[in-house]
Amino acid sequence: MSHVKFSYEILDAFCKEAFGKFGFSDEECAIITDVLLTSDLYGIESHGMQRLSRYHKGIEKGLIDVQAKPEVVFETPVSAVIDAHKGMGQLVGHKAMSIAIEKAKKSGMAVVTARDSNHFGIAGYYAKMASDQGLIGLAFTNSEAIMVPTYAKLAMLGSNPIAIAMPASPYPFLFDASTTVVTRGKLEMYRKAEKDLPEGWALDETGTASTDAPRVLENIVNKTGGGIMPLGGNTELYGGHKGYGYGMICEIFTSILSLGLTSNHTHTNGIGGTCHGFIAIDPAVFGDPEEIIGHLSTFLEELRNAPKADGAEKIYTHGEKEVLATKDRRENGIEVDIKTVQEMKDMSDYVGVDFEKYFGHFDFADENYKSVY
Amino acid sequence: MSHVKFSYEILDAFCKEAFGKFGFSDEECAIITDVLLTSDLYGIESHGMQRLSRYHKGIEKGLIDVQAKPEVVFETPVSAVIDAHKGMGQLVGHKAMSIAIEKAKKSGMAVVTARDSNHFGIAGYYAKMASDQGLIGLAFTNSEAIMVPTYAKLAMLGSNPIAIAMPASPYPFLFDASTTVVTRGKLEMYRKAEKDLPEGWALDETGTASTDAPRVLENIVNKTGGGIMPLGGNTELYGGHKGYGYGMICEIFTSILSLGLTSNHTHTNGIGGTCHGFIAIDPAVFGDPEEIIGHLSTFLEELRNAPKADGAEKIYTHGEKEVLATKDRRENGIEVDIKTVQEMKDMSDYVGVDFEKYFGHFDFADENYKSVY
Repeated sequence: MSHVKFSYEILDAFCKEAFGKFGFSDEECAIITDVLLTSDLYGIESHGMQRLSRYHKGIEKGLIDVQAKPEVVFETPVSAVIDAHKGMGQLVGHKAMSIAIEKAKKSGMAVVTARDSNHFGIAGYYAKMASDQGLIGLAFTNSEAIMVPTYAKLAMLGSNPIAIAMPASPYPFLFDASTTVVTRGKLEMYRKAEKDLPEGWALDETGTASTDAPRVLENIVNKTGGGIMPLGGNTELYGGHKGYGYGMICEIFTSILSLGLTSNHTHTNGIGGTCHGFIAIDPAVFGDPEEIIGHLSTFLEELRNAPKADGAEKIYTHGEKEVLATKDRRENGIEVDIKTVQEMKDMSDYVGVDFEKYFGHFDFADENYKSVY
Repeated sequence: MSHVKFSYEILDAFCKEAFGKFGFSDEECAIITDVLLTSDLYGIESHGMQRLSRYHKGIEKGLIDVQAKPEVVFETPVSAVIDAHKGMGQLVGHKAMSIAIEKAKKSGMAVVTARDSNHFGIAGYYAKMASDQGLIGLAFTNSEAIMVPTYAKLAMLGSNPIAIAMPASPYPFLFDASTTVVTRGKLEMYRKAEKDLPEGWALDETGTASTDAPRVLENIVNKTGGGIMPLGGNTELYGGHKGYGYGMICEIFTSILSLGLTSNHTHTNGIGGTCHGFIAIDPAVFGDPEEIIGHLSTFLEELRNAPKADGAEKIYTHGEKEVLATKDRRENGIEVDIKTVQEMKDMSDYVGVDFEKYFGHFDFADENYKSVY
C-alpha cells in the first residue's frame, strides 16, 4: 500500500467544499468534516478520508438523505429519541449529543437515542464532545451485522462500538472500541496485503474459525454466514460471551431504546437504519467536579507510571495515543492511502470539485506521489 | 473435588441464623443471604456459599463493620454518593440500588455510587433488582487489584465486573461478567486441580504470560507483580486494551464517581475500601415501555433462533443460563464443595450455630457424604 501525506488544512477545505456540493449547508459541512478529520488526526485511518467513498455511495444510493433533518419524537428532561429520517450520521450524532449535553447540564444526566440514521464516524468524537464540556460522555452505535454471537454461525450484531470520555489532566480519558475482536477494516487491510488473518479473529460460513480474509469478507457482504468474533473469541474459554455481552449493551442503548432496527435488520432490502445512543453525565452531581476529575487524573498518572512488563516500552491510558497522533499529524500531515486518493478524485469528478486546486496534478500511475502539506 | 448437595431452604435458614449470630438484623440477614444464594442458584458457585469464609474473615479482621450503616453523603434528584463506613457490601449494594430505583422512578434515571464498602457478591444481583421493577439496571464494583493493564507487569485494576439487566419475555436479559479474561476463582480451581492454566489468562511477576496457577496466585496475594489479563489478552492483537478499557469504565462508575479508593489502593494497609456503582433507567423515558421491552424480547428470540455454528448445540442469550440453573437447583439442590462445607462448619463453631441441626452429622473423613435436600 502506498501513502501520500496531505496537510490537515487542505483536507479540511477539500471536504467542506465536497460536502457542500452534495447539498449540505456550511454548518453541516463543518460538522461532517470535523468528525472525519478528527478520526484521521487520531490515527484511526479507517474512519476518516477512507470512508468518503462510502458516504458518497450512500448519498448516491439514497441510503443517506442530504435534506433530512433529525426530528425529536419523544422527550423528557433526561432523555430524547430522535428519528433521523435517513440523515447523515455525523449530523444526527452531533445534534443528539448536543441535546444530551444540554439536558445533562440542566438535569445532571441524559440519554438520547436515534434511529433510522447512517454511519456516524467514530463514536469517540461524540463522547469527547461531552468531555470538552466538562461532562462524562458515552456514545454507541449499532451497524451492519458483522459479529457472530457465541455458538452461532451468522452475524447478528454490528461491530457495536462503545466509547466513553471524561475530562482529565493533562488530557482526557477517551476509550473507543468495537465490541468485536477487531473491526472489518482490519480484515480489509489483511486482504489488501494478501496475508492470512491471525487465528481467533474471524469465522467462515459454517461458524468455524477461519484465517481466509477474502472468504470471510465475501460472506459478510453476501450475508451467507460467518463474520468477526466478539472480543474474547468464539468460545467461552477466553470470554467470547463477554464481547457478545458488550455488543448487547450497545444494542440496548441504540436500537432497543430508540425502537429502531437491531443490527441484524439494518442494511437489508435497501434500508440502512443505523441506530445510535448518547449519554452525558455531569460529574458535579457526585461532588466537587474538580476533585473528581483530579481523582481520575491521579489514577491515570499511576497507570502510566506503573511497572512495565519486561520488554514493554510504555503503558498507555486511553486517549493518550490520540493526543500524540493529533500532534504528529497537525505538524507532519495526514497519511492517506493512494486508493483513497483515487476515491477522493472520483468523488471530486462526480460532484464537480476541482481536485487539482487542492492536491495539484496527481499521476496515479507514478509511484513517486508528491506529498502536499 | 468432592461435592455434596443441600436444599435451597436448608442453606437459606442456615445462612440467616449464622449472619444473625454475627450481629446483623433479621432484615439484613435476609438481604445478605438472598444475594449469596442467588449466586448459587445461578450456578455462580464462586460467589455463593464458597464466599462465606471470606465474609467470616472480613468481619473477624475488622474489614467489615457489622454495625455500620451506609450514609448518603451527596445527593441530587438523579444521583447519590454513599459512604459505606466499611459496611457489609451486600447491604450497601442493596440500599444503593434501592435508592437508584426510587430516583429513576421519579426522575427517569439515576446513578448511585458507594465508597469504603466491601465485596458485595455478584453484580448481577443488583442489576436484576432494577429489572424486577421494570427498569434497566447496571451495577459495577471495583475490587482488589488483579488485572494487569496492557504492557504493565503489576495488577492495577480489579476484576471490575459490569452487569446489566433489562426486562424481557420470557425472561430478563442479564449480563454480568468481569472485565478480566477470567476471574481469580477460575485460577483457584486450576490450582486445586493441579492443572496448568490455559495460555492467555495470566501473567507472572515479570509481566510475561504464565500457565503456572500457584505462582500467579501467590504473586497476587503478595502484590509482587503479575495477575490476570484483561479480556482480550495482554496485547492489542486480540483487543486486550479493550478489556482494560472496560475495566476503566467500571473504575469510573465506582471509585472515581464516589471519590473512593481506586482498585490499586484497595486492600492495602489493612483497609478494604471497595467501591460500587449502580444505574437505573426507566425505559418509559424513551416511549411505551411495553413496546421497548417487546422489541428487546424479539431480538433475544432472534438470537436464540439464529443458525448455530457447525457442531454447536445451542445459542444462549445472557441470563438464560441463570434461569435454567435456578430451576435445576431449586428442584435438585445446590452443590457445595466439601471444602466449603468444612468452612461452613468452622464458621458455625465460631459464631455458635448448631451445624448438625441443618446438615446432620457430617463425617469429613468419609468420602460418601450424604446429600441433604
